[in-house]
Amino acid sequence: MSDIFGRNPVIEALRNDVTINKIWLAKGEQKGSVKEIIALAKEKKIIVQEVERAKLDAMFAGENHQGVAASIAAANYIEWEEILQIAEAKGEQPLIVILDELEDPHNLGAIMRNVDAVGAHGIIIPKRRAVALTEGVAKASAGAIAHVPVARVGNLVQVMEELKERGVWIAGAAMNGAPMYKQDMTGPLAIVIGNEGKGISRLVQKNCDFMVSIPMQGKINSLNASVAAGILLYEVHRQRTIGK
Amino acid sequence: MSDIFGRNPVIEALRNDVTINKIWLAKGEQKGSVKEIIALAKEKKIIVQEVERAKLDAMFAGENHQGVAASIAAANYIEWEEILQIAEAKGEQPLIVILDELEDPHNLGAIMRNVDAVGAHGIIIPKRRAVALTEGVAKASAGAIAHVPVARVGNLVQVMEELKERGVWIAGAAMNGAPMYKQDMTGPLAIVIGNEGKGISRLVQKNCDFMVSIPMQGKINSLNASVAAGILLYEVHRQRTIGK
Repeated sequence: MSDIFGRNPVIEALRNDVTINKIWLAKGEQKGSVKEIIALAKEKKIIVQEVERAKLDAMFAGENHQGVAASIAAANYIEWEEILQIAEAKGEQPLIVILDELEDPHNLGAIMRNVDAVGAHGIIIPKRRAVALTEGVAKASAGAIAHVPVARVGNLVQVMEELKERGVWIAGAAMNGAPMYKQDMTGPLAIVIGNEGKGISRLVQKNCDFMVSIPMQGKINSLNASVAAGILLYEVHRQRTIGK
Repeated sequence: MSDIFGRNPVIEALRNDVTINKIWLAKGEQKGSVKEIIALAKEKKIIVQEVERAKLDAMFAGENHQGVAASIAAANYIEWEEILQIAEAKGEQPLIVILDELEDPHNLGAIMRNVDAVGAHGIIIPKRRAVALTEGVAKASAGAIAHVPVARVGNLVQVMEELKERGVWIAGAAMNGAPMYKQDMTGPLAIVIGNEGKGISRLVQKNCDFMVSIPMQGKINSLNASVAAGILLYEVHRQRTIGK
């Protein structure tokens, strides 16, 4: 349920199908059992990230990490198709949150609480350049991690295309979108929330059906990502239950 | 703009009316210039908190803190009455957020962003047992700290009474409140958000005019405090601009 280090522990985790978010490898480590780790990770499509040895030294102070460590997922991931099945089983229009390179564990944890509270069906995150289901996320989720399905996908744009083929509309959250009150969000819907600093990436934005915005009238006009997700999800909830 | 330590720096800050959130004093420190610090703090109604010397050692590693330190506010506080004046000058119904012993700097920063974006008029926080305008809050506010008025008051319940006398309704956010869609929030309003773990304290709750809830249908049903504040503020915004 947390990070592990050392060659044998990482190999054991890989062999026993423990859900691994990511493997860290000190630069230059390519010999002996490290080769086996790289091969197993490749086979299981797990990201291997090369880092400075000093980073591992700092993460595992005083421990003999042997240049290898792994972030163990705090919960298991599901396949993204299962999120649609969950909605269908409940007889509800799918409501999904797609996170485009979200980085902050507090935000992912808070968004899991949003998804649970509003009764949405799941979250889709990318494998690369994004926070995964870590211990920090589990803590920030205040228990929601045990109930909110999360799918982790290699190619977000491809999954968006497949969602659209299955009738799900994709709404990107952006300042230049249509005001949320005027946008019909009662049908099958996935809401895309962008990175905390950069917003939604160009390619993902291009693949949204429409952009939706939260009306703002301040000087800064930037909401925290988890707050923006919560406001948009509850606007969908309002439209679906109270009416537009 | 951040924490300072040492007897003379703290005395200088007190004498020069630097806005201080709180003074930390190592247990047993009562002699010499510390007496002057205590007297000045009392005069200026600044909280002096006794802490273990080890806490100061950890906060100011390797520095000679002399058993005294102060948290300097990252922005100046205003008087709570000014928030009403700001609303009046804009010709708007007051919309205020009252935070009852909120602890997390991330949450206060995110709530400042909410207040800015939705066009609310200010935030009221208590002096004791609550996060103040620290550097961490400034960072989490993403710049909103420069634009959002914050009043810090000694007695929250008394200020709530005075707000009510001036025609402001006080709504407490709580699970057992009326669903927000059904609660008219178009008049002068202050929304109370409780502590992250304990919610709104008994005495504060007793002094609310009504309790309001965000409809929830999950397993955990607990939203992050800044998300809850954002959802409620935008429901007020919707009622005021689009109609009930």
